[in-house]
Amino acid sequence: MLDNYRLNDKSRISLADFDPEDTAGIASKDEIEAEFEALKEKLTEHQEKLFAGKTNGLLILFQGMDCSGKDGVIKKVLAGLNPQGFRAESFKKPTADEAAHDFLWRAHKVAPALGEIAAFNRSYYEEVLITRVHERIDGKEAGRRLKHIGHFEKMLSDGGITLIKIFLHISPEFQLRKIKERMEKPEKLWKFDPSDLEERKYWKAYAKAYEQAFKATATKRNPWYIVPANNRWFRDYLVLRIVESALGSMDLAYPEVDMSQFRAAADIDETAGL
Amino acid sequence: MLDNYRLNDKSRISLADFDPEDTAGIASKDEIEAEFEALKEKLTEHQEKLFAGKTNGLLILFQGMDCSGKDGVIKKVLAGLNPQGFRAESFKKPTADEAAHDFLWRAHKVAPALGEIAAFNRSYYEEVLITRVHERIDGKEAGRRLKHIGHFEKMLSDGGITLIKIFLHISPEFQLRKIKERMEKPEKLWKFDPSDLEERKYWKAYAKAYEQAFKATATKRNPWYIVPANNRWFRDYLVLRIVESALGSMDLAYPEVDMSQFRAAADIDETAGL
Repeated sequence: MLDNYRLNDKSRISLADFDPEDTAGIASKDEIEAEFEALKEKLTEHQEKLFAGKTNGLLILFQGMDCSGKDGVIKKVLAGLNPQGFRAESFKKPTADEAAHDFLWRAHKVAPALGEIAAFNRSYYEEVLITRVHERIDGKEAGRRLKHIGHFEKMLSDGGITLIKIFLHISPEFQLRKIKERMEKPEKLWKFDPSDLEERKYWKAYAKAYEQAFKATATKRNPWYIVPANNRWFRDYLVLRIVESALGSMDLAYPEVDMSQFRAAADIDETAGL
Repeated sequence: MLDNYRLNDKSRISLADFDPEDTAGIASKDEIEAEFEALKEKLTEHQEKLFAGKTNGLLILFQGMDCSGKDGVIKKVLAGLNPQGFRAESFKKPTADEAAHDFLWRAHKVAPALGEIAAFNRSYYEEVLITRVHERIDGKEAGRRLKHIGHFEKMLSDGGITLIKIFLHISPEFQLRKIKERMEKPEKLWKFDPSDLEERKYWKAYAKAYEQAFKATATKRNPWYIVPANNRWFRDYLVLRIVESALGSMDLAYPEVDMSQFRAAADIDETAGL
């Protein structure tokens, strides 16, 4: 099933080929509820081994338009992880210091170590998306940056970090519906900047910039996933499956320990008579 | 009830006055299970408002001997928080760069911002504990550092950060039992360094160093809590109550928003005809 949403070659990169309403034939949330909980349990077990073994790391990167649910999916799918060994990092407008460095600098600083899982809410991909859409960089510069991204990601994965790059795919109609919902709820409204509505005008330009990014950076080793996100339960379910599958295929194990050392130390201790 | 475990004056600072087996008269985990879940729900609501309002921040600092459950309590009580706005920070042996700075430097770097919650697994207090116990610093230097800690904590709280300082209180017998359990379980063993057993010999010196720290830094505004931790369910329950109570007393609210701005923007958008 995951294959249907994975981009790892250049043959299928048009967002028009993916339906934001898609639920893989699953009729409703009820059908997957039990499986969802079981998968979360498995995730926790994988994480414990990942943390103990420190042979692998995982970087899950979320991109998508406003209201596509980047915050929500991190909360629903990943909030149960042990916070020691898991971090969420948000990439907002760069600070002066960040802007004074190369475009990968601030992301590299917070990359996961072996043993860790990091979720990026937005990422260095913004530097070929919003910047390109608003013509702060030209096509040539975007091309250069995409090459740097490809090299950077390969370097991370050579160092034992698995990358999962997720695009949360919504329709513009869905976004407008969500914006209106937010306007009715004070506990949602604070998240929102009215100027974000301006960005809707650039919907098609964003789609094009994303497609160029997929084309340049979707590889067998570091694929993109296009996650249909108009149905939030399916979005959460699919992301959980993707993450669980990535960890499951790492062949994680607790490290071997020399027991004799421990027994000797414990024997000594008991005679210390505390 | 929380008053019984709170140190905020100098009159009661002997660890001998606190029983690690104490459960506040609660017979078993079953009695508080429903309340525990309800409190966790409330915690999540508080966090949402804290994050939205950005008027306050929270730093929860955990200290305690090996096996006192610092990792465990963070996982059980705090793992459900939204990872955007919550971080756990572990303070291990300082790196060369960290050791080349003043002893508060590395903690200050990862202090919570307004809107955030941070949990410290160990902290700058190690610099008046392990260092003092092994006589890497003398009493005079420890006194100086404790004063700096007091000033630092006051500065944080003046800036809107509430501090919760928790000492997880176990008995040496409990620790030995836990060490032996770990030796039987490969999924626990990796956490453990046989040289930690050596530290047991310094139990009384640690208690004394802790008591000096409490005496110097337990204030009305930034109190210490002595949490009996021989019963893990009670440890988790009490910590949850302490954290929930701190957030609950902050009077958090979603920020006010100028709705007219939004309505105007949304009207424009709909006519854009995406």
